[in-house]
Amino acid sequence: MSKKVGVLLAGCGVFDGSEIHEAVLTLLFLDKAGVQVLCMAPDMAQFHVINHLTQQETGEKRNVLVESARIARGDIQDVATVKALDLDALILPGGFGAVKNLSDFALKGPDAVVQPDVLRLIREMAAAGKPIGAICIAPATLTRAIADQKPEVTIGNDPGTAAGIERMGGKHYTCTVAQIHVDVANRIVTTPAYMLGPGIKDIAIGIERLVQEVVGMIR
Amino acid sequence: MSKKVGVLLAGCGVFDGSEIHEAVLTLLFLDKAGVQVLCMAPDMAQFHVINHLTQQETGEKRNVLVESARIARGDIQDVATVKALDLDALILPGGFGAVKNLSDFALKGPDAVVQPDVLRLIREMAAAGKPIGAICIAPATLTRAIADQKPEVTIGNDPGTAAGIERMGGKHYTCTVAQIHVDVANRIVTTPAYMLGPGIKDIAIGIERLVQEVVGMIR
Repeated sequence: MSKKVGVLLAGCGVFDGSEIHEAVLTLLFLDKAGVQVLCMAPDMAQFHVINHLTQQETGEKRNVLVESARIARGDIQDVATVKALDLDALILPGGFGAVKNLSDFALKGPDAVVQPDVLRLIREMAAAGKPIGAICIAPATLTRAIADQKPEVTIGNDPGTAAGIERMGGKHYTCTVAQIHVDVANRIVTTPAYMLGPGIKDIAIGIERLVQEVVGMIR
Repeated sequence: MSKKVGVLLAGCGVFDGSEIHEAVLTLLFLDKAGVQVLCMAPDMAQFHVINHLTQQETGEKRNVLVESARIARGDIQDVATVKALDLDALILPGGFGAVKNLSDFALKGPDAVVQPDVLRLIREMAAAGKPIGAICIAPATLTRAIADQKPEVTIGNDPGTAAGIERMGGKHYTCTVAQIHVDVANRIVTTPAYMLGPGIKDIAIGIERLVQEVVGMIR
Protein backbone atom coordinates (compact mmCIF):
# COMPACT_ATOMS: atom_id res chain seq x y z
CA MET A 1 0.00 0.00 0.00
CA SER A 2 1.53 3.29 -1.02
CA LYS A 3 1.43 6.21 1.37
CA LYS A 4 -1.28 8.81 0.85
CA VAL A 5 -0.69 12.49 1.58
CA GLY A 6 -3.43 15.12 1.62
CA VAL A 7 -2.82 18.59 0.18
CA LEU A 8 -5.25 21.14 1.61
CA LEU A 9 -5.85 23.95 -0.89
CA ALA A 10 -7.53 27.33 -0.29
CA GLY A 11 -8.31 28.67 -3.77
CA CYS A 12 -6.03 29.50 -6.69
CA GLY A 13 -3.80 32.56 -6.45
CA VAL A 14 -1.49 34.12 -3.87
CA PHE A 15 -3.68 37.09 -2.89
CA ASP A 16 -7.03 35.32 -2.35
CA GLY A 17 -6.27 31.58 -2.53
CA SER A 18 -3.44 29.07 -2.39
CA GLU A 19 -0.04 30.33 -3.57
CA ILE A 20 0.17 28.55 -6.90
CA HIS A 21 3.95 27.97 -7.00
CA GLU A 22 3.97 26.57 -3.46
CA ALA A 23 1.04 24.27 -4.19
CA VAL A 24 2.48 22.98 -7.48
CA LEU A 25 5.94 22.40 -5.98
CA THR A 26 4.31 20.46 -3.13
CA LEU A 27 2.56 18.24 -5.71
CA LEU A 28 5.82 17.81 -7.67
CA PHE A 29 7.91 16.72 -4.69
CA LEU A 30 5.15 14.42 -3.37
CA ASP A 31 4.97 12.73 -6.79
CA LYS A 32 8.77 12.40 -6.88
CA ALA A 33 8.61 10.85 -3.37
CA GLY A 34 6.36 8.13 -4.80
CA VAL A 35 3.32 8.80 -2.62
CA GLN A 36 -0.33 9.11 -3.61
CA VAL A 37 -1.77 12.60 -3.34
CA LEU A 38 -5.29 13.58 -2.31
CA CYS A 39 -6.07 17.23 -3.02
CA MET A 40 -8.89 18.78 -1.00
CA ALA A 41 -10.42 22.16 -0.20
CA PRO A 42 -13.46 23.50 1.63
CA ASP A 43 -16.67 23.87 -0.39
CA MET A 44 -17.39 27.49 0.58
CA ALA A 45 -17.34 31.01 -0.83
CA GLN A 46 -13.92 32.66 -0.95
CA PHE A 47 -13.51 35.53 1.54
CA HIS A 48 -13.10 37.77 -1.54
CA VAL A 49 -11.66 37.82 -5.07
CA ILE A 50 -8.55 39.88 -5.82
CA ASN A 51 -7.55 40.97 -9.34
CA HIS A 52 -3.93 39.76 -9.29
CA LEU A 53 -2.88 42.42 -11.83
CA THR A 54 -4.14 45.43 -9.84
CA GLN A 55 -4.38 43.86 -6.35
CA GLN A 56 -7.89 45.35 -6.06
CA GLU A 57 -11.01 43.48 -4.94
CA THR A 58 -13.26 42.66 -7.89
CA GLY A 59 -16.58 42.05 -6.09
CA GLU A 60 -16.90 38.65 -7.82
CA LYS A 61 -18.01 35.55 -5.93
CA ARG A 62 -15.88 32.41 -6.34
CA ASN A 63 -15.89 29.06 -4.52
CA VAL A 64 -12.74 27.79 -2.77
CA LEU A 65 -13.19 24.16 -3.87
CA VAL A 66 -13.98 25.09 -7.49
CA GLU A 67 -10.98 27.43 -7.83
CA SER A 68 -8.67 24.97 -6.03
CA ALA A 69 -9.69 22.40 -8.66
CA ARG A 70 -7.66 24.44 -11.19
CA ILE A 71 -4.44 23.58 -9.34
CA ALA A 72 -5.57 19.95 -8.91
CA ARG A 73 -6.60 19.58 -12.59
CA GLY A 74 -10.10 18.58 -11.39
CA ASP A 75 -8.88 15.76 -9.12
CA ILE A 76 -9.98 17.14 -5.75
CA GLN A 77 -12.40 16.43 -2.89
CA ASP A 78 -14.42 18.51 -0.45
CA VAL A 79 -12.38 18.48 2.78
CA ALA A 80 -15.64 17.76 4.65
CA THR A 81 -15.55 14.24 3.14
CA VAL A 82 -11.95 13.49 4.19
CA LYS A 83 -11.04 11.77 7.46
CA ALA A 84 -7.65 11.36 9.07
CA LEU A 85 -8.13 7.62 8.51
CA ASP A 86 -7.89 8.29 4.74
CA LEU A 87 -4.45 9.93 5.02
CA ASP A 88 -0.92 9.22 6.23
CA ALA A 89 0.04 12.90 6.33
CA LEU A 90 -1.34 16.35 5.49
CA ILE A 91 0.33 19.41 3.90
CA LEU A 92 -1.03 22.98 3.80
CA PRO A 93 0.56 25.22 1.11
CA GLY A 94 0.53 28.97 1.77
CA GLY A 95 -0.94 32.03 0.06
CA PHE A 96 -3.42 34.46 1.62
CA GLY A 97 -6.22 31.91 1.11
CA ALA A 98 -4.68 29.87 3.94
CA VAL A 99 -5.46 32.76 6.32
CA LYS A 100 -8.54 34.22 4.57
CA ASN A 101 -10.44 31.01 3.71
CA LEU A 102 -9.02 28.17 5.85
CA SER A 103 -9.15 30.59 8.79
CA ASP A 104 -9.55 34.35 9.18
CA PHE A 105 -6.11 34.98 10.71
CA ALA A 106 -5.40 37.64 8.03
CA LEU A 107 -8.28 39.68 9.44
CA LYS A 108 -8.46 38.76 13.12
CA GLY A 109 -4.89 37.77 13.94
CA PRO A 110 -4.66 35.69 17.12
CA ASP A 111 -8.46 35.74 17.54
CA ALA A 112 -8.85 33.85 14.25
CA VAL A 113 -11.48 31.15 13.79
CA VAL A 114 -10.50 28.08 11.72
CA GLN A 115 -12.99 26.81 9.10
CA PRO A 116 -14.87 23.92 10.84
CA ASP A 117 -14.00 21.07 8.41
CA VAL A 118 -10.36 22.20 8.31
CA LEU A 119 -10.26 22.39 12.11
CA ARG A 120 -11.77 18.90 12.44
CA LEU A 121 -9.31 17.30 9.98
CA ILE A 122 -6.23 19.00 11.46
CA ARG A 123 -7.23 17.93 14.99
CA GLU A 124 -7.94 14.38 13.84
CA MET A 125 -4.51 14.19 12.16
CA ALA A 126 -2.76 15.58 15.24
CA ALA A 127 -4.67 13.23 17.58
CA ALA A 128 -3.63 10.27 15.39
CA GLY A 129 0.03 11.37 15.51
CA LYS A 130 0.13 11.76 11.72
CA PRO A 131 2.63 14.33 10.38
CA ILE A 132 1.45 17.74 9.19
CA GLY A 133 3.42 20.13 6.98
CA ALA A 134 2.57 23.83 6.61
CA ILE A 135 4.16 26.32 4.22
CA CYS A 136 4.51 30.12 4.17
CA ILE A 137 1.66 31.72 6.21
CA ALA A 138 -0.29 28.44 6.64
CA PRO A 139 1.46 27.70 9.99
CA ALA A 140 -0.66 30.52 11.48
CA THR A 141 -3.88 28.62 10.73
CA LEU A 142 -2.29 25.36 11.88
CA THR A 143 -1.21 26.97 15.18
CA ARG A 144 -4.73 28.28 15.81
CA ALA A 145 -6.18 24.81 15.16
CA ILE A 146 -3.97 22.99 17.68
CA ALA A 147 -2.92 25.84 19.98
CA ASP A 148 -3.44 23.63 23.04
CA GLN A 149 -0.50 21.48 21.82
CA LYS A 150 1.80 24.54 21.79
CA PRO A 151 3.09 23.83 18.26
CA GLU A 152 6.57 24.98 17.19
CA VAL A 153 6.50 26.59 13.73
CA THR A 154 8.29 29.02 11.41
CA ILE A 155 6.87 31.63 9.04
CA GLY A 156 10.36 33.05 8.37
CA ASN A 157 11.10 36.19 10.35
CA ASP A 158 8.10 38.54 10.13
CA PRO A 159 7.84 40.01 13.67
CA GLY A 160 4.08 40.77 13.56
CA THR A 161 3.09 37.31 12.34
CA ALA A 162 5.55 35.63 14.73
CA ALA A 163 4.05 37.61 17.64
CA GLY A 164 0.55 36.56 16.55
CA ILE A 165 1.62 32.92 16.56
CA GLU A 166 3.09 33.24 20.06
CA ARG A 167 -0.10 34.96 21.32
CA MET A 168 -2.12 31.97 20.07
CA GLY A 169 0.07 29.65 22.15
CA GLY A 170 2.59 28.57 19.50
CA LYS A 171 6.36 28.97 19.57
CA HIS A 172 7.93 30.71 16.57
CA TYR A 173 11.39 29.85 15.27
CA THR A 174 13.22 32.07 12.76
CA CYS A 175 14.23 30.22 9.56
CA THR A 176 15.73 30.99 6.16
CA VAL A 177 13.82 30.10 2.98
CA ALA A 178 16.00 27.01 2.48
CA GLN A 179 15.32 25.70 5.98
CA ILE A 180 12.52 23.75 7.64
CA HIS A 181 11.56 23.73 11.29
CA VAL A 182 10.64 20.32 12.72
CA ASP A 183 8.46 20.08 15.85
CA VAL A 184 9.36 16.52 16.81
CA ALA A 185 6.83 16.16 19.63
CA ASN A 186 3.88 17.41 17.59
CA ARG A 187 5.13 15.91 14.29
CA ILE A 188 4.84 19.26 12.47
CA VAL A 189 7.14 20.54 9.69
CA THR A 190 7.09 24.17 8.47
CA THR A 191 9.05 26.32 5.98
CA PRO A 192 8.81 30.06 5.11
CA ALA A 193 8.64 29.86 1.25
CA TYR A 194 7.25 33.16 -0.12
CA MET A 195 7.07 34.72 3.37
CA LEU A 196 10.75 35.24 2.47
CA GLY A 197 11.21 34.38 -1.23
CA PRO A 198 12.75 35.86 -3.27
CA GLY A 199 12.13 33.46 -6.16
CA ILE A 200 10.67 30.12 -7.12
CA LYS A 201 14.02 28.30 -7.18
CA ASP A 202 14.64 29.49 -3.60
CA ILE A 203 11.27 28.41 -2.18
CA ALA A 204 11.61 25.06 -3.99
CA ILE A 205 14.55 24.16 -1.71
CA GLY A 206 12.58 24.53 1.53
CA ILE A 207 9.45 22.92 0.11
CA GLU A 208 11.38 19.88 -1.16
CA ARG A 209 12.92 19.45 2.31
CA LEU A 210 9.51 19.82 3.96
CA VAL A 211 7.93 17.19 1.71
CA GLN A 212 10.81 14.75 2.25
CA GLU A 213 10.66 15.26 6.03
CA VAL A 214 6.86 14.85 6.19
CA VAL A 215 6.93 11.70 4.04
CA GLY A 216 9.85 10.34 6.06
CA MET A 217 7.89 10.82 9.31
CA ILE A 218 5.03 8.57 8.15
CA ARG A 219 4.95 5.47 10.35
CA MET B 1 23.46 41.33 -19.04
CA SER B 2 21.47 38.29 -18.06
CA LYS B 3 19.33 36.55 -20.62
CA LYS B 4 15.61 37.33 -20.64
CA VAL B 5 13.01 34.72 -21.55
CA GLY B 6 9.33 35.49 -22.13
CA VAL B 7 6.63 33.13 -20.85
CA LEU B 8 3.37 33.57 -22.76
CA LEU B 9 0.40 32.66 -20.57
CA ALA B 10 -3.22 32.09 -21.61
CA GLY B 11 -5.21 32.22 -18.37
CA CYS B 12 -5.03 30.07 -15.22
CA GLY B 13 -6.27 26.48 -15.39
CA VAL B 14 -5.93 23.53 -17.75
CA PHE B 15 -9.46 23.59 -19.21
CA ASP B 16 -9.78 27.30 -20.05
CA GLY B 17 -6.32 28.81 -19.55
CA SER B 18 -2.67 27.88 -19.11
CA GLU B 19 -1.98 24.45 -17.61
CA ILE B 20 -0.83 25.52 -14.14
CA HIS B 21 1.73 22.75 -13.51
CA GLU B 22 3.36 23.28 -16.92
CA ALA B 23 3.53 27.05 -16.42
CA VAL B 24 4.96 26.81 -12.89
CA LEU B 25 7.55 24.19 -13.88
CA THR B 26 8.61 26.45 -16.78
CA LEU B 27 9.14 29.31 -14.30
CA LEU B 28 11.02 27.00 -11.91
CA PHE B 29 13.48 25.71 -14.50
CA LEU B 30 14.02 29.19 -16.02
CA ASP B 31 14.85 30.53 -12.55
CA LYS B 32 17.22 27.59 -11.94
CA ALA B 33 18.87 28.36 -15.31
CA GLY B 34 19.67 31.85 -14.01
CA VAL B 35 17.72 33.80 -16.61
CA GLN B 36 15.31 36.69 -16.14
CA VAL B 37 11.67 35.89 -16.82
CA LEU B 38 9.05 38.16 -18.38
CA CYS B 39 5.52 36.77 -18.03
CA MET B 40 2.96 38.09 -20.49
CA ALA B 41 -0.57 37.38 -21.72
CA PRO B 42 -3.11 38.99 -24.03
CA ASP B 43 -5.46 41.57 -22.47
CA MET B 44 -8.70 40.05 -23.75
CA ALA B 45 -11.75 38.11 -22.61
CA GLN B 46 -11.24 34.36 -22.16
CA PHE B 47 -13.04 32.24 -24.75
CA HIS B 48 -15.02 30.85 -21.81
CA VAL B 49 -14.75 29.89 -18.14
CA ILE B 50 -14.84 26.22 -17.13
CA ASN B 51 -15.63 25.02 -13.60
CA HIS B 52 -12.62 22.72 -13.09
CA LEU B 53 -14.55 20.53 -10.63
CA THR B 54 -17.48 19.72 -12.97
CA GLN B 55 -15.85 20.56 -16.34
CA GLN B 56 -18.99 22.58 -17.19
CA GLU B 57 -19.03 26.13 -18.59
CA THR B 58 -20.00 28.66 -15.91
CA GLY B 59 -21.09 31.59 -18.06
CA GLU B 60 -18.71 33.90 -16.16
CA LYS B 61 -16.53 36.45 -17.95
CA ARG B 62 -12.83 36.49 -17.08
CA ASN B 63 -9.83 38.27 -18.63
CA VAL B 64 -6.82 36.29 -19.86
CA LEU B 65 -4.22 38.79 -18.59
CA VAL B 66 -5.90 39.16 -15.18
CA GLU B 67 -6.20 35.39 -14.62
CA SER B 68 -2.67 34.75 -15.92
CA ALA B 69 -1.46 37.23 -13.28
CA ARG B 70 -2.35 34.59 -10.67
CA ILE B 71 0.39 32.30 -12.00
CA ALA B 72 2.80 35.25 -12.33
CA ARG B 73 2.06 36.57 -8.78
CA GLY B 74 1.09 39.91 -10.36
CA ASP B 75 4.37 40.36 -12.25
CA ILE B 76 3.07 40.24 -15.83
CA GLN B 77 2.68 42.43 -18.93
CA ASP B 78 0.19 42.75 -21.73
CA VAL B 79 1.76 40.86 -24.66
CA ALA B 80 0.79 43.82 -26.90
CA THR B 81 3.53 45.85 -25.17
CA VAL B 82 6.29 43.23 -25.66
CA LYS B 83 8.63 43.23 -28.67
CA ALA B 84 11.08 40.55 -29.78
CA LEU B 85 13.80 43.12 -29.03
CA ASP B 86 12.88 42.80 -25.31
CA LEU B 87 13.47 39.03 -25.28
CA ASP B 88 16.17 36.44 -25.95
CA ALA B 89 13.69 33.56 -26.18
CA LEU B 90 9.99 32.79 -25.75
CA ILE B 91 8.19 29.81 -24.18
CA LEU B 92 4.48 28.91 -24.49
CA PRO B 93 3.17 26.55 -21.80
CA GLY B 94 0.15 24.40 -22.70
CA GLY B 95 -3.38 23.98 -21.44
CA PHE B 96 -6.56 24.55 -23.45
CA GLY B 97 -6.09 28.32 -23.15
CA ALA B 98 -3.18 28.02 -25.60
CA VAL B 99 -5.69 26.86 -28.24
CA LYS B 100 -8.82 28.68 -27.01
CA ASN B 101 -7.36 32.12 -26.19
CA LEU B 102 -3.96 32.42 -27.92
CA SER B 103 -5.62 30.94 -31.02
CA ASP B 104 -8.88 29.11 -31.73
CA PHE B 105 -7.28 25.82 -32.81
CA ALA B 106 -9.43 23.93 -30.25
CA LEU B 107 -12.53 25.05 -32.18
CA LYS B 108 -11.38 25.45 -35.78
CA GLY B 109 -8.48 23.02 -36.06
CA PRO B 110 -6.21 23.78 -39.02
CA ASP B 111 -8.32 26.86 -39.94
CA ALA B 112 -7.39 28.47 -36.61
CA VAL B 113 -6.71 32.19 -36.31
CA VAL B 114 -3.94 33.27 -33.95
CA GLN B 115 -4.62 36.23 -31.58
CA PRO B 116 -3.04 39.28 -33.33
CA ASP B 117 -0.52 40.34 -30.64
CA VAL B 118 0.54 36.73 -30.13
CA LEU B 119 0.94 36.27 -33.90
CA ARG B 120 3.02 39.44 -34.18
CA LEU B 121 5.36 38.51 -31.31
CA ILE B 122 5.88 34.92 -32.48
CA ARG B 123 6.66 36.10 -36.03
CA GLU B 124 9.05 38.77 -34.73
CA MET B 125 10.87 36.18 -32.61
CA ALA B 126 11.11 33.74 -35.53
CA ALA B 127 12.30 36.46 -37.93
CA ALA B 128 15.01 37.44 -35.43
CA GLY B 129 16.14 33.81 -35.14
CA LYS B 130 15.39 33.75 -31.42
CA PRO B 131 14.50 30.36 -29.94
CA ILE B 132 10.89 29.47 -29.15
CA GLY B 133 9.71 26.64 -26.87
CA ALA B 134 6.16 25.28 -26.87
CA ILE B 135 4.68 22.74 -24.46
CA CYS B 136 1.74 20.29 -24.65
CA ILE B 137 -0.89 21.60 -27.12
CA ALA B 138 0.78 25.02 -27.59
CA PRO B 139 2.79 23.76 -30.63
CA ALA B 140 -0.50 23.81 -32.58
CA THR B 141 -0.82 27.58 -32.13
CA LEU B 142 2.89 28.04 -32.83
CA THR B 143 2.60 26.01 -36.04
CA ARG B 144 -0.35 28.11 -37.24
CA ALA B 145 1.61 31.33 -36.54
CA ILE B 146 4.65 30.36 -38.61
CA ALA B 147 3.20 27.72 -40.93
CA ASP B 148 5.16 29.20 -43.89
CA GLN B 149 8.37 28.07 -42.17
CA LYS B 150 7.13 24.45 -42.04
CA PRO B 151 7.96 24.02 -38.33
CA GLU B 152 8.81 20.60 -36.88
CA VAL B 153 7.00 19.99 -33.59
CA THR B 154 5.68 17.33 -31.22
CA ILE B 155 2.46 17.17 -29.22
CA GLY B 156 3.15 13.55 -28.23
CA ASN B 157 1.22 11.02 -30.29
CA ASP B 158 -2.41 12.17 -30.63
CA PRO B 159 -3.31 11.31 -34.25
CA GLY B 160 -6.00 13.98 -34.70
CA THR B 161 -3.88 16.83 -33.39
CA ALA B 162 -0.84 15.60 -35.31
CA ALA B 163 -2.92 15.51 -38.52
CA GLY B 164 -4.12 19.06 -37.84
CA ILE B 165 -0.54 20.23 -37.44
CA GLU B 166 0.46 18.60 -40.72
CA ARG B 167 -2.56 20.14 -42.51
CA MET B 168 -1.40 23.59 -41.35
CA GLY B 169 2.01 22.95 -42.95
CA GLY B 170 3.95 21.68 -39.96
CA LYS B 171 5.71 18.35 -39.54
CA HIS B 172 4.77 16.27 -36.50
CA TYR B 173 7.24 14.00 -34.69
CA THR B 174 6.09 11.44 -32.11
CA CYS B 175 7.78 11.87 -28.71
CA THR B 176 7.52 10.45 -25.20
CA VAL B 177 6.78 12.73 -22.25
CA ALA B 178 10.46 12.72 -21.24
CA GLN B 179 11.61 13.78 -24.72
CA ILE B 180 11.88 17.07 -26.58
CA HIS B 181 11.84 17.63 -30.32
CA VAL B 182 14.31 20.21 -31.62
CA ASP B 183 13.71 21.92 -34.98
CA VAL B 184 17.25 23.13 -35.56
CA ALA B 185 16.51 25.21 -38.66
CA ASN B 186 13.60 27.05 -37.10
CA ARG B 187 15.10 27.11 -33.57
CA ILE B 188 11.94 25.58 -32.06
CA VAL B 189 11.79 23.16 -29.10
CA THR B 190 8.63 21.24 -28.14
CA THR B 191 7.62 18.59 -25.57
CA PRO B 192 4.31 16.74 -24.99
CA ALA B 193 3.88 17.27 -21.21
CA TYR B 194 0.21 16.64 -20.23
CA MET B 195 -0.71 15.65 -23.82
CA LEU B 196 0.79 12.39 -22.50
CA GLY B 197 1.27 12.77 -18.72
CA PRO B 198 0.65 10.79 -16.60
CA GLY B 199 1.88 12.86 -13.66
CA ILE B 200 3.68 16.03 -12.66
CA LYS B 201 7.03 14.29 -12.05
CA ASP B 202 6.87 12.87 -15.60
CA ILE B 203 6.08 16.16 -17.35
CA ALA B 204 8.78 17.89 -15.28
CA ILE B 205 11.43 15.84 -17.09
CA GLY B 206 10.48 17.03 -20.59
CA ILE B 207 9.86 20.60 -19.48
CA GLU B 208 13.27 20.81 -17.77
CA ARG B 209 14.92 19.55 -20.97
CA LEU B 210 12.95 22.02 -23.07
CA VAL B 211 13.94 24.97 -20.86
CA GLN B 212 17.60 23.95 -20.86
CA GLU B 213 17.60 23.54 -24.66
CA VAL B 214 15.84 26.87 -25.28
CA VAL B 215 18.19 28.74 -22.92
CA GLY B 216 21.20 26.98 -24.46
CA MET B 217 20.16 28.08 -27.95
CA ILE B 218 20.25 31.79 -27.01
CA ARG B 219 23.06 33.46 -28.96
